Amino acid sequence: MPVRPSIPGPTIKRLTLYLREVERRQMEGQTRISSGELGRALGLTDTQIRKDLSWFGQFGQAGIGYLLDPLSMRLREILGKDRIWKTAVVGAGRLGQAIMSYGPFAREGFEVAAVFDANPEMVGREVAGHRIHSMEDLGTVVKERGVLLGIVSVPREAAQEVADRLIDAGVLGLLNFAPVRLEVGDRASVASVDFSSRLERLAFQVSAGLKGSIDGED
Amino acid sequence: MPVRPSIPGPTIKRLTLYLREVERRQMEGQTRISSGELGRALGLTDTQIRKDLSWFGQFGQAGIGYLLDPLSMRLREILGKDRIWKTAVVGAGRLGQAIMSYGPFAREGFEVAAVFDANPEMVGREVAGHRIHSMEDLGTVVKERGVLLGIVSVPREAAQEVADRLIDAGVLGLLNFAPVRLEVGDRASVASVDFSSRLERLAFQVSAGLKGSIDGED
Repeated sequence: MPVRPSIPGPTIKRLTLYLREVERRQMEGQTRISSGELGRALGLTDTQIRKDLSWFGQFGQAGIGYLLDPLSMRLREILGKDRIWKTAVVGAGRLGQAIMSYGPFAREGFEVAAVFDANPEMVGREVAGHRIHSMEDLGTVVKERGVLLGIVSVPREAAQEVADRLIDAGVLGLLNFAPVRLEVGDRASVASVDFSSRLERLAFQVSAGLKGSIDGED
Repeated sequence: MPVRPSIPGPTIKRLTLYLREVERRQMEGQTRISSGELGRALGLTDTQIRKDLSWFGQFGQAGIGYLLDPLSMRLREILGKDRIWKTAVVGAGRLGQAIMSYGPFAREGFEVAAVFDANPEMVGREVAGHRIHSMEDLGTVVKERGVLLGIVSVPREAAQEVADRLIDAGVLGLLNFAPVRLEVGDRASVASVDFSSRLERLAFQVSAGLKGSIDGED
């Protein structure tokens, strides 16, 4: 895709907000929107919106604004929401099970296509509707099912090896829940969910007497 | 605390990195460090480091650098790491259980002081070493135990009410795992762990062919 490799994280977050607002208006029957109107709905300036969208080519027309159908289609494509992402969960402990049963995943276009665990007592069992495979089958199953994303919910010590095996099997992106930095070089994309660092920042906010949501900063 | 209410999120993240590096060097017997040396270790400019620390008063001295003992003590204080944070987990389902048994929490100075669940079948049971209390006891137990942070691991529909009840009981900070934005006004601080949005961003990275870690952006 013709995307420059240095799109700022906050831009990507805003694209998600744009898509949500655009889809809401499509459902209400609206067909076009100006950057000013979109901005007012989201508390952003029209300049910010035009700048964000300009990363991905020309969408709007002066005086007319954005047509919602092509805009939402292009946003869905940019955000990878025009497809179902097959996902493997590695580590079927409490956290893995919580992830598997996390409702929004399916709604947002992610499918748990395979689950793996190193514990022989878990293998073959069915948890949250998914049969648990052994680690030995990881390469074969991931390839067969066309899994592109891997969720790493194993203990810290096992995380890097799991990451390497997922990547070797063809996985392109890893969502890492283990409290360790995965080294993947340029073989894959990695995003981390780090409970501790969120809690640390929350404690800082409380220490400093800062109130309100700190989501926006993240 | 004399902290200005607009400290940027990235600054707070870097403070955590500074503390980690400073503590590592203290363990090795080092007693002082220049902003340049700290910068090289962390891949930051000395200007950035001096600017970050200047939010919190004067630490270093020209030509001498920073004394590690007072620096680490002040960083720990700023980051709220000079105390144990008593935490309540509300929602003892799979996710709540995973959170309770998450090792790093205890290491980082967080104590699970109470657990609550709305399901009568869960109440009174012991999970991951914690006895589960009924929601009716939330106010009393939170106050008695001096809980300051609340972890919201309930379904989306219940999250706002749980947040309100925790705040009414005296909780100052909420870590929200429910896929919904909590409205707390200026009554508390809120941080969110949103699995979906991380996975969405990962999918975007993969779509766009961007490799490597995207942790740093968040």
